Amino acid sequence: MNQKHHSTDYLAAFVDEIATEVQNVVISPGSRSTPLAMLIAEHPDLRVYVNVDERSAAFFALGIAKATQAPVVLLCTSGTAAANYFPAVIEAKLSRIPLIVLTSDRPHELRDIGAPQAIDQIHLYGSHVKWFSEMAIPDSNDEMIAYVRRSAVRAIGMSVQAPKGPVHLNFPLREPLIPKLEPSPFPSKGRKAEKPIMQEAGSLQLNADAYQKYARHFSKEKRGVIICGELVDEAFHPAVINAAEKLGYPIIADPLSQLRSNSLSQVNIIDSYDTFLHSDEARKQLSPKIILRFGPMPVSKKLSTWLKGLSDAEQYIIDGGLGWRDPVKVGTNMIACDEAVFCKEISFYAAQQKDRSWLHSWQKINKLTKQVMNDIIAAEEELYEGKATFELMKQLPQKSTLFIGNSMPIRDVDTFFHCNNNEINLLCNRGANGIDGVVSAALGASVYRSHLYLLIGDLSFFHDLNGLLAAKMYHLSITIILMNNNGGGIFSYLPQAQHPKYFETLFGTPTDLDFYHAVKMYGGTHTMIDSWDQFQLAIKTAPLNGGLQVIEVPTDRQKNVEKLRFILEQVSREINNYLSSEENES
Amino acid sequence: MNQKHHSTDYLAAFVDEIATEVQNVVISPGSRSTPLAMLIAEHPDLRVYVNVDERSAAFFALGIAKATQAPVVLLCTSGTAAANYFPAVIEAKLSRIPLIVLTSDRPHELRDIGAPQAIDQIHLYGSHVKWFSEMAIPDSNDEMIAYVRRSAVRAIGMSVQAPKGPVHLNFPLREPLIPKLEPSPFPSKGRKAEKPIMQEAGSLQLNADAYQKYARHFSKEKRGVIICGELVDEAFHPAVINAAEKLGYPIIADPLSQLRSNSLSQVNIIDSYDTFLHSDEARKQLSPKIILRFGPMPVSKKLSTWLKGLSDAEQYIIDGGLGWRDPVKVGTNMIACDEAVFCKEISFYAAQQKDRSWLHSWQKINKLTKQVMNDIIAAEEELYEGKATFELMKQLPQKSTLFIGNSMPIRDVDTFFHCNNNEINLLCNRGANGIDGVVSAALGASVYRSHLYLLIGDLSFFHDLNGLLAAKMYHLSITIILMNNNGGGIFSYLPQAQHPKYFETLFGTPTDLDFYHAVKMYGGTHTMIDSWDQFQLAIKTAPLNGGLQVIEVPTDRQKNVEKLRFILEQVSREINNYLSSEENES
Repeated sequence: MNQKHHSTDYLAAFVDEIATEVQNVVISPGSRSTPLAMLIAEHPDLRVYVNVDERSAAFFALGIAKATQAPVVLLCTSGTAAANYFPAVIEAKLSRIPLIVLTSDRPHELRDIGAPQAIDQIHLYGSHVKWFSEMAIPDSNDEMIAYVRRSAVRAIGMSVQAPKGPVHLNFPLREPLIPKLEPSPFPSKGRKAEKPIMQEAGSLQLNADAYQKYARHFSKEKRGVIICGELVDEAFHPAVINAAEKLGYPIIADPLSQLRSNSLSQVNIIDSYDTFLHSDEARKQLSPKIILRFGPMPVSKKLSTWLKGLSDAEQYIIDGGLGWRDPVKVGTNMIACDEAVFCKEISFYAAQQKDRSWLHSWQKINKLTKQVMNDIIAAEEELYEGKATFELMKQLPQKSTLFIGNSMPIRDVDTFFHCNNNEINLLCNRGANGIDGVVSAALGASVYRSHLYLLIGDLSFFHDLNGLLAAKMYHLSITIILMNNNGGGIFSYLPQAQHPKYFETLFGTPTDLDFYHAVKMYGGTHTMIDSWDQFQLAIKTAPLNGGLQVIEVPTDRQKNVEKLRFILEQVSREINNYLSSEENES
Repeated sequence: MNQKHHSTDYLAAFVDEIATEVQNVVISPGSRSTPLAMLIAEHPDLRVYVNVDERSAAFFALGIAKATQAPVVLLCTSGTAAANYFPAVIEAKLSRIPLIVLTSDRPHELRDIGAPQAIDQIHLYGSHVKWFSEMAIPDSNDEMIAYVRRSAVRAIGMSVQAPKGPVHLNFPLREPLIPKLEPSPFPSKGRKAEKPIMQEAGSLQLNADAYQKYARHFSKEKRGVIICGELVDEAFHPAVINAAEKLGYPIIADPLSQLRSNSLSQVNIIDSYDTFLHSDEARKQLSPKIILRFGPMPVSKKLSTWLKGLSDAEQYIIDGGLGWRDPVKVGTNMIACDEAVFCKEISFYAAQQKDRSWLHSWQKINKLTKQVMNDIIAAEEELYEGKATFELMKQLPQKSTLFIGNSMPIRDVDTFFHCNNNEINLLCNRGANGIDGVVSAALGASVYRSHLYLLIGDLSFFHDLNGLLAAKMYHLSITIILMNNNGGGIFSYLPQAQHPKYFETLFGTPTDLDFYHAVKMYGGTHTMIDSWDQFQLAIKTAPLNGGLQVIEVPTDRQKNVEKLRFILEQVSREINNYLSSEENES
């Protein structure tokens, strides 16, 4: 090796160590970040995406990390660039997505003295990252190379240790900023010259007698219910189904639990609760004594309200990520334990429940609800959002991915997307539930998913229009179903709707934008829907054409509300009929 | 008054107090913020702008505040919405713009338990606001009404006290969220029932003998220079000109000092230093003994480098906002004093400098530089950014406002926008120098400026395309001169340009976007320029048509660099000729 180049040696050691576990880096252009950017681009094992808008860049990285569950690196220059990452960083923290945020900074002697593009980047993201490290000024003695390598390993480890999440490393960098790429700053072969640093991520677990105690207790009570929120751990899915089977408990499965559409048994899965819990009679009939809850609280507001009222039930909240996920404040047992391990151990120790009557009650009401819904929806000719989601569920090809926008789309999916065996992966940013960054997150996920659909409302689509640049630059394929009700649809379901004086100004907020132009600018294809036949056809054919496909469904905010209310009323009436006939029979 | 409505009474008292000093509120739609939003909309003295994208909303508010120098209120819902404000909050802190950020939050019992759209909003903006207050849960007893009123007064006071800046108030709000608007929650007449709370903002000042001491000292040294960065205090401009006149000092005036285009004397103003400081001979000839610097460091890198080399000079840095604005670390005297007061007192105590030879040297080189530039530019037929800025300077109508983008536009203005009497107000986001939020900030400023032009590069324009929605929604008039060099033009001037391997990927970053479509979507008029005649015509006619006018100038990154280099070389040569002929004569 020639003369030492301190900054290059130090940063190359970092990048090389990062590359042992990370594959994807999203870079936003800038000057201060030059040495890291060039070294990352030079590294043979790293794939680089460049994204000019840092807000979109961060959500794009989040999307890749969501699809792969592996950490993704973000890199930007100093200044407000780093502040643009903030929304995605917060989302990553709350939804437990591993991100490694690298910000480049002025060195100490250029801080807080009015130097250009210099802001206070120390703890820039406050409590919203799992770990922050102000890195040392680059130096290449053995001590510092060991330090910087270990910082990379530690950053990776912290990001993937449960609960997964974002970490932030701030790099003060001095001029000159150009690294020395010749000869290669990376070890020539076999990954690295130095001894690798291994790390092992432990998980939270209970002792055997605790599992046994809980299993016995659950086995004694047939009126139990399992509730699953978003949980991506693949070991968890068969484990919870086995546990439910053994205990005879129904599983209330949030769409993001991934239990509504997979190749596993769906016997115990309850998927239409957001509709039937509207019925007083159903709620009374299905009142449980024990509730086991995994993952964050599901999206259904009716479910939360129902849980809140079940003050006599024992409510177990099992979380391997040490959250305190109990927004309804009814948890009686907070259990810090890996969810898959817990389910496996319960299945192992529990006695097989023979009495299936409780489960059957759930199954019957669930089935009845879906029948009523299907009949009503089939007869509908007008375009509206609920039916569009329902049709989408039927049309999506096997093993495709549906990325879901916040606000109404995720609620519509919760209500209208029922069990099937198409193995549709359902993704959504449910950490902070923002309507921001959704286009970019979906595009990030599309890098690893061959058929990706995005269901999104017009305000959310507008919020991250810039995200579409990635589709154009990287020739990504995505089919976007744009539900355009010209404004904030969710407010029509809320009390605000009763106050017309400021409703459209403050809540409805129509933008009257013709998104055809935006799609055109990003080189996409725009299809405006005016019938269900056309919608079905578009869903099928869009992905075949590849690239950016936007299918716009014009809807009416008020009609969406009315049609959902009609379904809720019809379902409640049918459930009442059914339950009173049951009572008469018995 | 009817039965008390605690939340309404409390929040109405706050809003009513805010309205005593604030006129403009920028609201982004959301549910949690409902009571504040509706009360603000109901208040007769507040003007409301709704902006769906909170990042653009915050920059829009910043733009209004920049144009008016009065605080602007921002309001958003809980969650990542508030995080989208972060870039503009940082910019406001560093560029000393008064903003009052109101974020609505879940109440304490819904925090950190996985409730939807709930994030940790306590000290969300860290060190980047001047003041943070976690507000109390609304209550309407006298104590709490007094508290909330005083919090509003204090927020206003903190935002406008030098240095001006952003403050953040976080409001925990419980359901039900709809306020009671009937009967009116505001005092019916005469602004308010309660005794008003007065506040007076003091400024930093020295004692008389200190001014006297400095004035005597400065009077004794004719080789002095005044340097003015961005300073918007109108009392400062005549005061500094008087002081310069008395001391016989030239004023190196950054474009944002507002000294290059106004109705005041321009005898002492030096405006082409960014060009002539390229010349070794000029730097030698003009080497000062005393430097008085006001405002942040000017944009010119050549000026910074020159200052850095003047280690024998006394360098006074006068700042009424307690900054430590010395990125080149050469300040010998850091003076915490209101800038206008300092200049007035120096003028009062200083002796009139009779020897004008030093000033004349500056004036001659400045004049010569501009002659050479004018001749070169007049002969140029190709479209390039320097000449476009030069032409713009000549064509802008009297008393118009030019908002300037970061990266290249502000540098081009620094180089090519010379003194005139057209009273052009020059604005730019020079706190953190971000390319983000520029469209929105300019549109915010346009609310108070009848002829507003924005000079912006394509990446910066792209970054805040969403900002254009405000132009459409509020029928704002703006003429945007879009310098489209298809990527990051600044990097072609930096050492990165010498490393072609990753240059286009990481730094040039062309987007190949046709912005015609974006302009179309927002209902604007797009004009593509292909000659200087057309450019001149477009500049003149665009504002007459009103609304959103985008004048796109296609340029070439490499040519921009070459043409500037040619000017620098020619100017240096002419200065050398002139100085050696001077020497021969003497």
